[in-house]
Amino acid sequence: MNISKEKVTDFFKNLQKNICNSLEKADEKGKFAKETWQRDEGGGGITRVIKDGNVIEKGGVNFSEVYGKTPEVLKQKSEYTGDDFYATGVSIVIHPKNPKVPIIHMNVRYFEMSDGNAWFGGGIDLTPHYVDTEDAVFFHQSLEKVCSQFHKSYYPKFKTWADDYFYIPHRKETRGVGGIFFDYLKADEFFTLTQRFDFVKSVGESFAPIYTKFIKKNKNLAFTEAEKRWQLLRRGRYVEFNLVYDRGTKFGLQTAGRIESILMSLPLYASWEYSPKISPESPEGKTLSLLKKDIDWINY
Amino acid sequence: MNISKEKVTDFFKNLQKNICNSLEKADEKGKFAKETWQRDEGGGGITRVIKDGNVIEKGGVNFSEVYGKTPEVLKQKSEYTGDDFYATGVSIVIHPKNPKVPIIHMNVRYFEMSDGNAWFGGGIDLTPHYVDTEDAVFFHQSLEKVCSQFHKSYYPKFKTWADDYFYIPHRKETRGVGGIFFDYLKADEFFTLTQRFDFVKSVGESFAPIYTKFIKKNKNLAFTEAEKRWQLLRRGRYVEFNLVYDRGTKFGLQTAGRIESILMSLPLYASWEYSPKISPESPEGKTLSLLKKDIDWINY
Repeated sequence: MNISKEKVTDFFKNLQKNICNSLEKADEKGKFAKETWQRDEGGGGITRVIKDGNVIEKGGVNFSEVYGKTPEVLKQKSEYTGDDFYATGVSIVIHPKNPKVPIIHMNVRYFEMSDGNAWFGGGIDLTPHYVDTEDAVFFHQSLEKVCSQFHKSYYPKFKTWADDYFYIPHRKETRGVGGIFFDYLKADEFFTLTQRFDFVKSVGESFAPIYTKFIKKNKNLAFTEAEKRWQLLRRGRYVEFNLVYDRGTKFGLQTAGRIESILMSLPLYASWEYSPKISPESPEGKTLSLLKKDIDWINY
Repeated sequence: MNISKEKVTDFFKNLQKNICNSLEKADEKGKFAKETWQRDEGGGGITRVIKDGNVIEKGGVNFSEVYGKTPEVLKQKSEYTGDDFYATGVSIVIHPKNPKVPIIHMNVRYFEMSDGNAWFGGGIDLTPHYVDTEDAVFFHQSLEKVCSQFHKSYYPKFKTWADDYFYIPHRKETRGVGGIFFDYLKADEFFTLTQRFDFVKSVGESFAPIYTKFIKKNKNLAFTEAEKRWQLLRRGRYVEFNLVYDRGTKFGLQTAGRIESILMSLPLYASWEYSPKISPESPEGKTLSLLKKDIDWINY
Protein backbone atom coordinates (compact mmCIF):
# COMPACT_ATOMS: atom_id res chain seq x y z
CA MET A 1 0.00 0.00 0.00
CA ASN A 2 2.78 2.42 0.94
CA ILE A 3 5.08 3.88 -1.68
CA SER A 4 8.63 2.70 -2.21
CA LYS A 5 11.60 4.66 -3.43
CA GLU A 6 11.84 2.25 -6.36
CA LYS A 7 8.30 3.16 -7.44
CA VAL A 8 8.99 6.89 -7.15
CA THR A 9 12.27 6.54 -9.01
CA ASP A 10 10.61 4.59 -11.80
CA PHE A 11 7.93 7.21 -12.10
CA PHE A 12 10.50 10.00 -12.40
CA LYS A 13 12.53 8.05 -14.94
CA ASN A 14 9.44 7.54 -17.08
CA LEU A 15 8.41 11.14 -16.62
CA GLN A 16 11.74 12.25 -18.04
CA LYS A 17 11.24 10.02 -21.07
CA ASN A 18 7.67 11.14 -21.67
CA ILE A 19 8.47 14.83 -21.34
CA CYS A 20 11.42 14.53 -23.74
CA ASN A 21 9.16 12.81 -26.27
CA SER A 22 6.48 15.49 -25.97
CA LEU A 23 8.98 18.29 -26.32
CA GLU A 24 10.64 16.70 -29.37
CA LYS A 25 7.24 16.34 -30.97
CA ALA A 26 6.36 19.96 -30.26
CA ASP A 27 9.74 21.21 -31.43
CA GLU A 28 9.60 19.23 -34.69
CA LYS A 29 13.39 19.39 -35.12
CA GLY A 30 15.48 19.27 -31.94
CA LYS A 31 16.40 15.90 -30.44
CA PHE A 32 17.43 15.24 -26.86
CA ALA A 33 20.93 13.88 -26.44
CA LYS A 34 21.37 11.46 -23.57
CA GLU A 35 24.25 11.27 -21.15
CA THR A 36 24.38 8.86 -18.23
CA TRP A 37 26.59 9.75 -15.30
CA GLN A 38 27.65 8.16 -12.02
CA ARG A 39 28.12 9.89 -8.70
CA ASP A 40 31.28 8.80 -6.85
CA GLU A 41 29.50 8.69 -3.50
CA GLY A 42 26.49 6.77 -4.82
CA GLY A 43 23.91 6.90 -7.59
CA GLY A 44 23.94 8.99 -10.72
CA GLY A 45 21.65 10.34 -13.35
CA ILE A 46 20.57 10.75 -16.92
CA THR A 47 21.11 14.21 -18.38
CA ARG A 48 19.10 14.93 -21.50
CA VAL A 49 19.90 18.12 -23.33
CA ILE A 50 18.30 19.57 -26.45
CA LYS A 51 19.76 22.38 -28.51
CA ASP A 52 19.18 24.29 -31.69
CA GLY A 53 15.64 23.07 -32.24
CA ASN A 54 12.96 24.89 -34.18
CA VAL A 55 11.55 26.28 -30.97
CA ILE A 56 13.96 25.35 -28.21
CA GLU A 57 17.34 27.05 -28.27
CA LYS A 58 18.65 25.15 -25.26
CA GLY A 59 16.95 22.97 -22.72
CA GLY A 60 17.57 20.19 -20.28
CA VAL A 61 15.43 17.49 -18.74
CA ASN A 62 17.48 15.80 -16.03
CA PHE A 63 16.75 12.72 -14.01
CA SER A 64 18.84 11.85 -10.99
CA GLU A 65 18.89 9.22 -8.28
CA VAL A 66 21.59 9.86 -5.69
CA TYR A 67 22.28 8.39 -2.29
CA GLY A 68 24.92 7.84 0.35
CA LYS A 69 26.10 9.70 3.43
CA THR A 70 24.02 12.82 4.07
CA PRO A 71 26.11 15.90 3.08
CA GLU A 72 27.00 18.17 6.00
CA VAL A 73 25.41 21.17 4.29
CA LEU A 74 22.05 19.35 4.43
CA LYS A 75 22.38 18.23 8.02
CA GLN A 76 21.98 21.82 9.19
CA LYS A 77 18.32 21.63 8.16
CA SER A 78 15.87 19.98 10.49
CA GLU A 79 14.39 17.65 7.87
CA TYR A 80 17.64 15.88 7.04
CA THR A 81 17.63 13.68 10.10
CA GLY A 82 19.37 10.50 9.00
CA ASP A 83 23.01 9.72 8.37
CA ASP A 84 22.17 8.37 4.93
CA PHE A 85 19.90 9.85 2.31
CA TYR A 86 18.26 8.88 -0.92
CA ALA A 87 17.07 11.52 -3.38
CA THR A 88 15.52 11.23 -6.79
CA GLY A 89 13.90 13.73 -9.07
CA VAL A 90 13.45 15.40 -12.42
CA SER A 91 14.61 18.94 -13.21
CA ILE A 92 13.72 20.87 -16.33
CA VAL A 93 14.60 24.25 -17.77
CA ILE A 94 13.68 25.20 -21.35
CA HIS A 95 14.99 28.33 -23.08
CA PRO A 96 13.14 28.95 -26.34
CA LYS A 97 14.52 30.93 -29.27
CA ASN A 98 11.47 33.10 -29.79
CA PRO A 99 11.08 35.79 -27.09
CA LYS A 100 7.31 35.32 -27.30
CA VAL A 101 7.63 31.76 -26.01
CA PRO A 102 8.20 31.72 -22.23
CA ILE A 103 11.03 30.04 -20.36
CA ILE A 104 9.73 27.23 -18.17
CA HIS A 105 11.14 25.36 -15.21
CA MET A 106 9.93 22.35 -13.30
CA ASN A 107 11.41 20.26 -10.55
CA VAL A 108 9.86 17.29 -8.79
CA ARG A 109 11.80 15.39 -6.18
CA TYR A 110 11.63 12.81 -3.43
CA PHE A 111 13.89 12.55 -0.37
CA GLU A 112 14.18 9.64 2.00
CA MET A 113 16.41 9.64 5.06
CA SER A 114 17.83 6.52 6.70
CA ASP A 115 15.71 7.12 9.82
CA GLY A 116 12.51 6.84 7.79
CA ASN A 117 11.79 10.56 7.34
CA ALA A 118 10.56 11.02 3.75
CA TRP A 119 9.00 13.80 1.72
CA PHE A 120 8.27 15.23 -1.71
CA GLY A 121 9.15 18.65 -3.01
CA GLY A 122 9.02 20.52 -6.26
CA GLY A 123 7.67 23.37 -8.25
CA ILE A 124 6.85 24.67 -11.66
CA ASP A 125 7.15 28.27 -12.72
CA LEU A 126 6.86 30.28 -15.91
CA THR A 127 9.20 33.08 -16.99
CA PRO A 128 7.81 34.93 -19.98
CA HIS A 129 10.17 37.44 -21.60
CA TYR A 130 6.98 39.35 -22.34
CA VAL A 131 4.12 38.69 -19.95
CA ASP A 132 1.03 37.67 -21.92
CA THR A 133 -1.64 37.97 -19.25
CA GLU A 134 -3.87 35.40 -20.95
CA ASP A 135 -1.03 32.87 -20.88
CA ALA A 136 -0.30 33.67 -17.24
CA VAL A 137 -3.96 33.13 -16.35
CA PHE A 138 -4.06 29.85 -18.26
CA PHE A 139 -0.86 28.71 -16.55
CA HIS A 140 -2.16 29.41 -13.06
CA GLN A 141 -5.61 28.01 -13.76
CA SER A 142 -4.00 24.81 -15.00
CA LEU A 143 -1.92 24.53 -11.83
CA GLU A 144 -4.93 25.35 -9.69
CA LYS A 145 -6.80 22.47 -11.34
CA VAL A 146 -3.95 20.08 -10.61
CA CYS A 147 -3.77 21.23 -7.00
CA SER A 148 -7.47 21.29 -6.24
CA GLN A 149 -7.81 17.59 -7.14
CA PHE A 150 -5.90 16.98 -3.92
CA HIS A 151 -6.74 19.75 -1.50
CA LYS A 152 -8.16 23.24 -1.70
CA SER A 153 -5.32 24.58 0.43
CA TYR A 154 -2.65 23.39 -2.02
CA TYR A 155 -2.87 26.02 -4.75
CA PRO A 156 -3.06 29.16 -2.56
CA LYS A 157 -0.31 27.90 -0.31
CA PHE A 158 2.03 26.72 -3.04
CA LYS A 159 1.35 29.74 -5.24
CA THR A 160 2.40 32.07 -2.41
CA TRP A 161 5.41 29.87 -1.74
CA ALA A 162 6.43 30.23 -5.42
CA ASP A 163 6.00 34.02 -5.26
CA ASP A 164 8.36 34.07 -2.31
CA TYR A 165 10.81 31.56 -3.72
CA PHE A 166 11.13 32.73 -7.34
CA TYR A 167 12.02 36.23 -6.27
CA ILE A 168 15.14 38.28 -7.02
CA PRO A 169 15.56 40.56 -3.98
CA HIS A 170 18.37 42.65 -5.48
CA ARG A 171 16.14 43.46 -8.47
CA LYS A 172 12.93 43.68 -6.46
CA GLU A 173 11.35 41.54 -9.15
CA THR A 174 9.85 38.07 -9.33
CA ARG A 175 11.63 35.83 -11.84
CA GLY A 176 8.49 35.54 -13.93
CA VAL A 177 4.77 35.06 -13.29
CA GLY A 178 5.40 32.40 -10.66
CA GLY A 179 3.58 29.11 -10.40
CA ILE A 180 3.71 26.69 -7.51
CA PHE A 181 6.49 25.66 -5.14
CA PHE A 182 6.32 23.14 -2.31
CA ASP A 183 8.68 21.22 -0.08
CA TYR A 184 8.75 18.81 2.85
CA LEU A 185 5.41 17.24 1.87
CA LYS A 186 5.44 14.35 4.31
CA ALA A 187 2.87 11.91 5.54
CA ASP A 188 0.96 13.70 8.28
CA GLU A 189 -2.48 13.66 9.93
CA PHE A 190 -4.11 14.91 6.69
CA PHE A 191 -2.22 13.14 3.91
CA THR A 192 -0.50 9.82 3.40
CA LEU A 193 2.82 9.77 1.57
CA THR A 194 0.99 8.02 -1.26
CA GLN A 195 -1.36 10.98 -1.55
CA ARG A 196 1.63 13.30 -1.64
CA PHE A 197 3.11 11.16 -4.39
CA ASP A 198 -0.15 11.26 -6.35
CA PHE A 199 -0.03 15.03 -6.20
CA VAL A 200 3.57 15.16 -7.40
CA LYS A 201 2.70 12.76 -10.22
CA SER A 202 -0.07 15.10 -11.35
CA VAL A 203 2.26 18.10 -11.23
CA GLY A 204 4.86 16.23 -13.27
CA GLU A 205 2.30 15.06 -15.82
CA SER A 206 0.88 18.56 -16.21
CA PHE A 207 4.17 19.90 -17.54
CA ALA A 208 4.07 18.65 -21.13
CA PRO A 209 0.46 19.61 -21.97
CA ILE A 210 0.90 23.08 -20.46
CA TYR A 211 4.21 23.93 -22.07
CA THR A 212 3.53 22.41 -25.48
CA LYS A 213 0.38 24.53 -25.60
CA PHE A 214 2.53 27.66 -25.16
CA ILE A 215 4.91 26.40 -27.82
CA LYS A 216 2.12 25.79 -30.34
CA LYS A 217 0.41 29.08 -29.59
CA ASN A 218 3.47 31.33 -29.73
CA LYS A 219 6.24 29.67 -31.74
CA ASN A 220 5.39 31.39 -35.00
CA LEU A 221 4.85 34.87 -33.61
CA ALA A 222 7.10 37.42 -35.30
CA PHE A 223 9.66 39.26 -33.21
CA THR A 224 12.04 42.15 -33.68
CA GLU A 225 15.71 42.70 -32.88
CA ALA A 226 14.62 44.87 -29.95
CA GLU A 227 12.50 42.03 -28.61
CA LYS A 228 15.41 39.63 -28.96
CA ARG A 229 17.61 42.08 -27.04
CA TRP A 230 15.01 42.21 -24.27
CA GLN A 231 14.91 38.41 -24.18
CA LEU A 232 18.67 38.30 -23.56
CA LEU A 233 18.33 40.84 -20.74
CA ARG A 234 15.57 38.79 -19.13
CA ARG A 235 17.76 35.72 -19.43
CA GLY A 236 20.42 37.71 -17.58
CA ARG A 237 17.96 37.93 -14.69
CA TYR A 238 17.37 34.20 -14.99
CA VAL A 239 21.11 33.63 -14.61
CA GLU A 240 21.17 35.96 -11.60
CA PHE A 241 18.37 34.04 -9.90
CA ASN A 242 19.85 30.63 -10.60
CA LEU A 243 23.41 31.43 -9.54
CA VAL A 244 22.54 33.56 -6.52
CA TYR A 245 19.29 32.18 -5.08
CA ASP A 246 18.25 28.84 -6.54
CA ARG A 247 18.53 26.27 -3.77
CA GLY A 248 19.24 23.34 -6.04
CA THR A 249 22.01 25.20 -7.85
CA LYS A 250 23.57 26.45 -4.62
CA PHE A 251 23.45 22.97 -3.14
CA GLY A 252 25.03 21.58 -6.29
CA LEU A 253 27.83 24.14 -6.25
CA GLN A 254 28.51 23.64 -2.54
CA THR A 255 28.62 19.87 -2.74
CA ALA A 256 30.61 19.78 -5.99
CA GLY A 257 27.83 18.01 -7.85
CA ARG A 258 27.99 17.29 -11.57
CA ILE A 259 28.49 20.85 -12.68
CA GLU A 260 27.35 20.47 -16.30
CA SER A 261 24.01 19.00 -15.20
CA ILE A 262 23.52 21.64 -12.53
CA LEU A 263 24.22 24.55 -14.85
CA MET A 264 22.30 23.19 -17.83
CA SER A 265 19.63 25.63 -16.59
CA LEU A 266 21.64 28.59 -17.90
CA PRO A 267 20.73 29.97 -21.33
CA LEU A 268 22.85 29.74 -24.47
CA TYR A 269 23.04 33.55 -24.60
CA ALA A 270 22.35 36.17 -21.95
CA SER A 271 23.05 39.87 -21.77
CA TRP A 272 23.61 42.64 -19.24
CA GLU A 273 23.40 46.33 -20.04
CA TYR A 274 24.03 49.16 -17.65
CA SER A 275 20.72 50.76 -16.62
CA PRO A 276 18.73 50.13 -19.78
CA LYS A 277 16.02 52.73 -20.20
CA ILE A 278 12.59 51.08 -20.16
CA SER A 279 9.53 53.25 -20.66
CA PRO A 280 6.69 52.17 -18.35
CA GLU A 281 4.28 52.31 -21.30
CA SER A 282 6.33 49.97 -23.49
CA PRO A 283 5.64 46.21 -23.61
CA GLU A 284 8.90 45.79 -21.68
CA GLY A 285 7.74 48.25 -19.03
CA LYS A 286 4.39 46.52 -18.82
CA THR A 287 6.16 43.20 -18.28
CA LEU A 288 8.27 44.71 -15.49
CA SER A 289 5.10 46.00 -13.80
CA LEU A 290 3.78 42.43 -13.70
CA LEU A 291 6.90 40.87 -12.17
CA LYS A 292 5.71 41.13 -8.61
CA LYS A 293 4.32 38.95 -5.87
CA ASP A 294 0.69 38.47 -4.94
CA ILE A 295 -0.91 38.92 -8.33
CA ASP A 296 -4.15 36.91 -8.27
CA TRP A 297 -3.66 35.31 -11.68
CA ILE A 298 -6.61 32.92 -11.29
CA ASN A 299 -9.02 35.85 -11.20
CA TYR A 300 -6.94 38.32 -13.22
CA MET B 1 51.80 63.37 8.61
CA ASN B 2 49.09 60.75 8.95
CA ILE B 3 46.61 60.15 6.15
CA SER B 4 43.05 61.37 6.28
CA LYS B 5 40.00 59.87 4.70
CA GLU B 6 39.58 63.06 2.68
CA LYS B 7 43.03 62.59 1.15
CA VAL B 8 42.35 58.98 0.28
CA THR B 9 38.95 59.84 -1.15
CA ASP B 10 40.44 62.61 -3.27
CA PHE B 11 43.07 60.25 -4.56
CA PHE B 12 40.46 57.68 -5.57
CA LYS B 13 38.29 60.30 -7.22
CA ASN B 14 41.23 61.50 -9.29
CA LEU B 15 42.27 57.96 -10.06
CA GLN B 16 38.84 57.32 -11.54
CA LYS B 17 39.16 60.39 -13.74
CA ASN B 18 42.68 59.57 -14.90
CA ILE B 19 41.88 55.97 -15.70
CA CYS B 20 38.77 56.97 -17.68
CA ASN B 21 40.88 59.44 -19.66
CA SER B 22 43.55 56.85 -20.41
CA LEU B 23 41.00 54.26 -21.47
CA GLU B 24 39.16 56.71 -23.73
CA LYS B 25 42.44 57.63 -25.35
CA ALA B 26 43.35 53.98 -25.90
CA ASP B 27 39.88 53.12 -27.19
CA GLU B 28 39.83 56.04 -29.65
CA LYS B 29 36.02 55.99 -29.86
CA GLY B 30 34.12 55.06 -26.68
CA LYS B 31 33.34 57.75 -24.12
CA PHE B 32 32.57 57.23 -20.46
CA ALA B 33 29.10 58.35 -19.41
CA LYS B 34 28.88 59.69 -15.89
CA GLU B 35 26.16 59.08 -13.36
CA THR B 36 26.25 60.41 -9.81
CA TRP B 37 24.23 58.61 -7.18
CA GLN B 38 23.41 59.06 -3.52
CA ARG B 39 23.14 56.35 -0.90
CA ASP B 40 20.11 56.74 1.39
CA GLU B 41 22.10 55.80 4.47
CA GLY B 42 25.03 58.09 3.66
CA GLY B 43 27.42 58.87 0.85
CA GLY B 44 27.17 57.91 -2.79
CA GLY B 45 29.26 57.50 -5.85
CA ILE B 46 30.11 58.25 -9.43
CA THR B 47 29.47 55.44 -11.88
CA ARG B 48 31.25 55.78 -15.19
CA VAL B 49 30.32 53.33 -17.89
CA ILE B 50 31.68 52.97 -21.40
CA LYS B 51 30.06 50.95 -24.15
CA ASP B 52 30.42 50.15 -27.80
CA GLY B 53 33.92 51.54 -28.15
CA ASN B 54 36.44 50.47 -30.76
CA VAL B 55 38.07 48.15 -28.27
CA ILE B 56 35.85 48.12 -25.19
CA GLU B 57 32.47 46.48 -25.58
CA LYS B 58 31.37 47.29 -22.03
CA GLY B 59 33.26 48.59 -19.06
CA GLY B 60 32.81 50.44 -15.82
CA VAL B 61 35.08 52.54 -13.64
CA ASN B 62 33.23 53.21 -10.40
CA PHE B 63 34.10 55.52 -7.56
CA SER B 64 32.22 55.36 -4.29
CA GLU B 65 32.37 56.97 -0.88
CA VAL B 66 29.84 55.49 1.53
CA TYR B 67 29.41 55.83 5.28
CA GLY B 68 26.94 55.46 8.11
CA LYS B 69 25.98 52.69 10.50
CA THR B 70 28.05 49.55 9.97
CA PRO B 71 25.89 46.93 8.18
CA GLU B 72 25.16 43.84 10.30
CA VAL B 73 26.61 41.56 7.62
CA LEU B 74 30.00 43.28 8.11
CA LYS B 75 29.92 43.20 11.88
CA GLN B 76 30.36 39.43 11.82
CA LYS B 77 33.93 39.98 10.66
CA SER B 78 36.55 40.84 13.21
CA GLU B 79 37.87 43.93 11.39
CA TYR B 80 34.59 45.82 11.39
CA THR B 81 34.83 46.91 14.98
CA GLY B 82 33.04 50.27 15.07
CA ASP B 83 29.36 51.15 14.96
CA ASP B 84 29.98 53.54 12.09
CA PHE B 85 32.04 52.98 8.98
CA TYR B 86 33.50 54.96 6.13
CA ALA B 87 34.48 53.25 2.89
CA THR B 88 35.82 54.63 -0.34
CA GLY B 89 37.26 53.02 -3.42
CA VAL B 90 37.49 52.52 -7.13
CA SER B 91 36.25 49.40 -8.93
CA ILE B 92 36.92 48.56 -12.54
CA VAL B 93 35.93 45.82 -14.94
CA ILE B 94 36.59 46.06 -18.67
CA HIS B 95 35.14 43.64 -21.23
CA PRO B 96 36.76 44.11 -24.64
CA LYS B 97 35.18 43.15 -27.95
CA ASN B 98 38.16 41.30 -29.32
CA PRO B 99 38.70 37.90 -27.68
CA LYS B 100 42.46 38.46 -27.97
CA VAL B 101 42.27 41.42 -25.57
CA PRO B 102 41.95 40.24 -21.95
CA ILE B 103 39.24 41.19 -19.46
CA ILE B 104 40.72 43.18 -16.57
CA HIS B 105 39.53 43.98 -13.08
CA MET B 106 40.89 46.25 -10.40
CA ASN B 107 39.60 47.34 -7.04
CA VAL B 108 41.29 49.61 -4.53
CA ARG B 109 39.52 50.56 -1.32
CA TYR B 110 39.91 52.13 2.09
CA PHE B 111 37.87 51.36 5.20
CA GLU B 112 37.75 53.38 8.40
CA MET B 113 35.73 52.37 11.43
CA SER B 114 34.45 54.78 14.06
CA ASP B 115 36.75 53.26 16.68
CA GLY B 116 39.83 54.20 14.64
CA ASN B 117 40.49 50.84 12.98
CA ALA B 118 41.47 51.56 9.37
CA TRP B 119 42.85 49.59 6.46
CA PHE B 120 43.36 49.34 2.71
CA GLY B 121 42.37 46.50 0.44
CA GLY B 122 42.25 45.76 -3.22
CA GLY B 123 43.45 43.71 -6.10
CA ILE B 124 44.03 43.57 -9.78
CA ASP B 125 43.64 40.49 -11.93
CA LEU B 126 43.71 39.60 -15.60
CA THR B 127 41.27 37.26 -17.36
CA PRO B 128 42.45 36.49 -20.89
CA HIS B 129 39.97 34.60 -23.06
CA TYR B 130 43.08 33.06 -24.57
CA VAL B 131 46.09 32.96 -22.29
CA ASP B 132 49.06 34.59 -24.01
CA THR B 133 51.89 33.50 -21.75
CA GLU B 134 54.02 36.51 -22.69
CA ASP B 135 51.23 38.85 -21.63
CA ALA B 136 50.73 36.93 -18.40
CA VAL B 137 54.43 37.18 -17.62
CA PHE B 138 54.44 40.92 -18.39
CA PHE B 139 51.38 41.41 -16.21
CA HIS B 140 52.89 39.64 -13.21
CA GLN B 141 56.31 41.23 -13.66
CA SER B 142 54.63 44.65 -13.69
CA LEU B 143 52.78 43.89 -10.48
CA GLU B 144 55.91 42.46 -8.92
CA LYS B 145 57.69 45.74 -9.69
CA VAL B 146 54.91 47.74 -8.04
CA CYS B 147 54.97 45.50 -4.98
CA SER B 148 58.71 45.27 -4.52
CA GLN B 149 59.03 49.05 -4.22
CA PHE B 150 57.35 48.59 -0.84
CA HIS B 151 58.33 45.19 0.50
CA LYS B 152 59.70 41.99 -0.91
CA SER B 153 57.00 40.01 0.87
CA TYR B 154 54.18 41.86 -0.90
CA TYR B 155 54.19 40.24 -4.32
CA PRO B 156 54.50 36.58 -3.27
CA LYS B 157 51.92 37.01 -0.55
CA PHE B 158 49.41 38.97 -2.60
CA LYS B 159 49.91 36.80 -5.70
CA THR B 160 49.04 33.69 -3.70
CA TRP B 161 46.09 35.50 -2.17
CA ALA B 162 44.83 36.33 -5.69
CA ASP B 163 45.24 32.69 -6.78
CA ASP B 164 43.06 31.66 -3.86
CA TYR B 165 40.54 34.46 -4.23
CA PHE B 166 39.99 34.49 -8.01
CA TYR B 167 39.14 30.83 -8.06
CA ILE B 168 35.95 29.08 -9.21
CA PRO B 169 35.71 25.95 -7.05
CA HIS B 170 32.78 24.42 -8.94
CA ARG B 171 34.81 24.63 -12.17
CA LYS B 172 38.14 23.81 -10.53
CA GLU B 173 39.57 26.74 -12.53
CA THR B 174 41.09 30.08 -11.67
CA ARG B 175 39.18 32.97 -13.24
CA GLY B 176 42.18 33.99 -15.31
CA VAL B 177 45.92 34.28 -14.80
CA GLY B 178 45.48 35.96 -11.41
CA GLY B 179 47.37 39.01 -10.24
CA ILE B 180 47.44 40.39 -6.72
CA PHE B 181 44.83 40.57 -3.97
CA PHE B 182 45.21 42.05 -0.50
CA ASP B 183 42.99 43.14 2.37
CA TYR B 184 43.15 44.50 5.92
CA LEU B 185 46.42 46.32 5.27
CA LYS B 186 46.58 48.31 8.51
CA ALA B 187 49.26 50.25 10.27
CA ASP B 188 51.35 47.71 12.16
CA GLU B 189 54.88 47.27 13.50
CA PHE B 190 56.28 47.16 9.95
CA PHE B 191 54.22 49.68 7.99
CA THR B 192 52.49 52.96 8.70
CA LEU B 193 49.07 53.55 7.20
CA THR B 194 50.72 56.14 4.95
CA GLN B 195 53.00 53.44 3.58
CA ARG B 196 50.00 51.23 2.96
CA PHE B 197 48.38 54.15 1.14
CA ASP B 198 51.47 54.70 -0.96
CA PHE B 199 51.35 51.07 -2.01
CA VAL B 200 47.68 51.28 -2.95
CA LYS B 201 48.39 54.47 -4.91
CA SER B 202 51.05 52.64 -6.89
CA VAL B 203 48.71 49.75 -7.59
CA GLY B 204 46.00 52.13 -8.76
CA GLU B 205 48.38 54.07 -10.95
CA SER B 206 49.75 50.90 -12.53
CA PHE B 207 46.36 50.00 -14.00
CA ALA B 208 46.23 52.32 -17.01
CA PRO B 209 49.77 51.73 -18.34
CA ILE B 210 49.42 47.98 -17.98
CA TYR B 211 46.01 47.65 -19.57
CA THR B 212 46.47 50.16 -22.35
CA LYS B 213 49.58 48.23 -23.33
CA PHE B 214 47.44 45.10 -23.79
CA ILE B 215 44.90 47.11 -25.75
CA LYS B 216 47.52 48.52 -28.12
CA LYS B 217 49.24 45.19 -28.56
CA ASN B 218 46.16 43.07 -29.23
CA LYS B 219 43.28 45.22 -30.41
CA ASN B 220 43.89 44.65 -34.11
CA LEU B 221 44.50 40.92 -33.94
CA ALA B 222 42.12 39.02 -36.20
CA PHE B 223 39.69 36.59 -34.65
CA THR B 224 37.26 33.94 -35.87
CA GLU B 225 33.64 33.14 -35.04
CA ALA B 226 34.90 30.15 -33.05
CA GLU B 227 37.14 32.44 -31.00
CA LYS B 228 34.22 34.79 -30.38
CA ARG B 229 32.14 31.83 -29.21
CA TRP B 230 34.91 30.86 -26.80
CA GLN B 231 35.05 34.43 -25.51
CA LEU B 232 31.34 34.29 -24.62
CA LEU B 233 31.84 30.98 -22.82
CA ARG B 234 34.72 32.46 -20.81
CA ARG B 235 32.55 35.43 -19.98
CA GLY B 236 29.99 32.93 -18.67
CA ARG B 237 32.64 31.82 -16.19
CA TYR B 238 33.25 35.46 -15.30
CA VAL B 239 29.54 35.83 -14.52
CA GLU B 240 29.66 32.67 -12.42
CA PHE B 241 32.58 33.97 -10.40
CA ASN B 242 31.08 37.41 -9.86
CA LEU B 243 27.60 36.27 -8.88
CA VAL B 244 28.65 33.29 -6.76
CA TYR B 245 31.98 34.19 -5.17
CA ASP B 246 32.97 37.84 -5.56
CA ARG B 247 32.91 39.39 -2.09
CA GLY B 248 32.06 42.88 -3.25
CA THR B 249 29.18 41.66 -5.38
CA LYS B 250 27.83 39.43 -2.62
CA PHE B 251 28.07 42.26 -0.12
CA GLY B 252 26.29 44.58 -2.56
CA LEU B 253 23.49 42.09 -3.16
CA GLN B 254 23.05 41.36 0.54
CA THR B 255 22.97 45.01 1.58
CA ALA B 256 20.76 46.10 -1.33
CA GLY B 257 23.43 48.41 -2.72
CA ARG B 258 23.04 50.26 -6.00
CA ILE B 259 22.44 47.24 -8.15
CA GLU B 260 23.33 48.77 -11.53
CA SER B 261 26.74 49.85 -10.22
CA ILE B 262 27.39 46.50 -8.57
CA LEU B 263 26.50 44.48 -11.65
CA MET B 264 28.25 46.73 -14.17
CA SER B 265 30.96 44.07 -13.94
CA LEU B 266 28.85 41.65 -16.00
CA PRO B 267 29.52 41.46 -19.75
CA LEU B 268 27.19 42.63 -22.49
CA TYR B 269 26.95 39.07 -23.81
CA ALA B 270 27.80 35.76 -22.20
CA SER B 271 27.07 32.19 -23.15
CA TRP B 272 26.65 28.75 -21.62
CA GLU B 273 26.77 25.52 -23.57
CA TYR B 274 26.26 22.06 -22.17
CA SER B 275 29.60 20.23 -21.92
CA PRO B 276 31.40 21.88 -24.84
CA LYS B 277 34.06 19.58 -26.23
CA ILE B 278 37.50 21.15 -25.90
CA SER B 279 40.50 19.31 -27.26
CA PRO B 280 43.51 19.63 -24.91
CA GLU B 281 45.72 20.46 -27.92
CA SER B 282 43.55 23.36 -29.10
CA PRO B 283 44.27 26.98 -28.06
CA GLU B 284 41.15 26.73 -25.88
CA GLY B 285 42.44 23.57 -24.24
CA LYS B 286 45.83 25.18 -23.70
CA THR B 287 44.13 28.12 -22.00
CA LEU B 288 42.20 25.76 -19.72
CA SER B 289 45.46 24.04 -18.75
CA LEU B 290 46.82 27.43 -17.59
CA LEU B 291 43.82 28.37 -15.47
CA LYS B 292 45.24 27.03 -12.25
CA LYS B 293 46.82 28.23 -9.05
CA ASP B 294 50.51 28.46 -8.25
CA ILE B 295 51.89 29.12 -11.71
CA ASP B 296 55.13 31.04 -11.21
CA TRP B 297 54.43 33.64 -13.90
CA ILE B 298 57.41 35.81 -12.97
CA ASN B 299 59.81 33.05 -13.97
CA TYR B 300 57.58 31.31 -16.52
